[in-house]
Amino acid sequence: MERLERLIGHFSRLPGIGKKSASRIAYWILEADHGFVDTFSQEMGEIQNHVTRCKECGNYAESELCVVCASPVRERHQMCVVEQPKDVATIESTGEFRGLYHVLHGVLSPLDGVGPEELGLLHMRERVAREGVHEVIVATNPTLEGDSTALYIQRMLNEEGVQVSRIASGLPVGGDMEYADKLSIARALRARQSV
Amino acid sequence: MERLERLIGHFSRLPGIGKKSASRIAYWILEADHGFVDTFSQEMGEIQNHVTRCKECGNYAESELCVVCASPVRERHQMCVVEQPKDVATIESTGEFRGLYHVLHGVLSPLDGVGPEELGLLHMRERVAREGVHEVIVATNPTLEGDSTALYIQRMLNEEGVQVSRIASGLPVGGDMEYADKLSIARALRARQSV
Repeated sequence: MERLERLIGHFSRLPGIGKKSASRIAYWILEADHGFVDTFSQEMGEIQNHVTRCKECGNYAESELCVVCASPVRERHQMCVVEQPKDVATIESTGEFRGLYHVLHGVLSPLDGVGPEELGLLHMRERVAREGVHEVIVATNPTLEGDSTALYIQRMLNEEGVQVSRIASGLPVGGDMEYADKLSIARALRARQSV
Repeated sequence: MERLERLIGHFSRLPGIGKKSASRIAYWILEADHGFVDTFSQEMGEIQNHVTRCKECGNYAESELCVVCASPVRERHQMCVVEQPKDVATIESTGEFRGLYHVLHGVLSPLDGVGPEELGLLHMRERVAREGVHEVIVATNPTLEGDSTALYIQRMLNEEGVQVSRIASGLPVGGDMEYADKLSIARALRARQSV
């Protein structure tokens, strides 16, 4: 059963899929609706050719501009900077933000040779000026690299007179103090707000 | 991002994959190696056309006979009856069985209109006689339907003078009495063996 073994191997390369799940899925595929498997495999094979990066913001796009950049109703004076395209989808799902995005596709990481230029920060600064953005919200992850990147962006854009903020980090809503790590609690304390 | 949304939808139809995992996988696919995605999607699209059922035993096969039925070294007087093709792979992985298989693709379920004929049990009886099988091990699942099917097969083949056994059920090796259900403990007690 070479073909089945190969398909199991392919599925087990996907993130979060172990050997057992891969096997279960491959056997399921064998018995699945033919039309579904046809459409699924074809669209998966084509997606890399049809989805590219928006030339403005770096988000995934199906044409030159992504849906956000191409939209006439977004507030263009606000910009949210994120690490990855999926972060855009996450923020969009909250419905809390109506401005533009900028996707870095990474973070500053000098040891890996990723400096401001590699991360496209100069292009971003030029874009901020061109679009007339007043406020930039940096939503990189609350990690060491995410924080350094945020700091760099803040200094770079403050020079240009742009207001830069960082999304808050602290305890997750619905979370329990008992399960939070010390760093998150420390940050939550430092960022305390009057109620 | 219609294409990406559709791909997420496809992945979330797979067994054991929720909306969040599907999204993570689809984003991963977008950035994955092109060669991998090409091969993966192509082989998935083709598998249903290349993998059929063995005309002898019902197991998945890439030609008329499956690898087990086509093998000259299997012991043809022993036959293991299972519900699904994946059960063959599971038993093969133990290396404990060197005989033939017979895959029912289901169990007896009169309420769903699945009787002995629909399950191909008459074809199986004919095959047992033709191959000269002496011993049949019924490895259907230890469920109500699996047990009824085993009982039916036992009665049918005992008439033909074939020895029929049922795989043991009891506590899983490495399992803990505390987490076992009452039925499994009851069965394990009934099937106790002297040490």
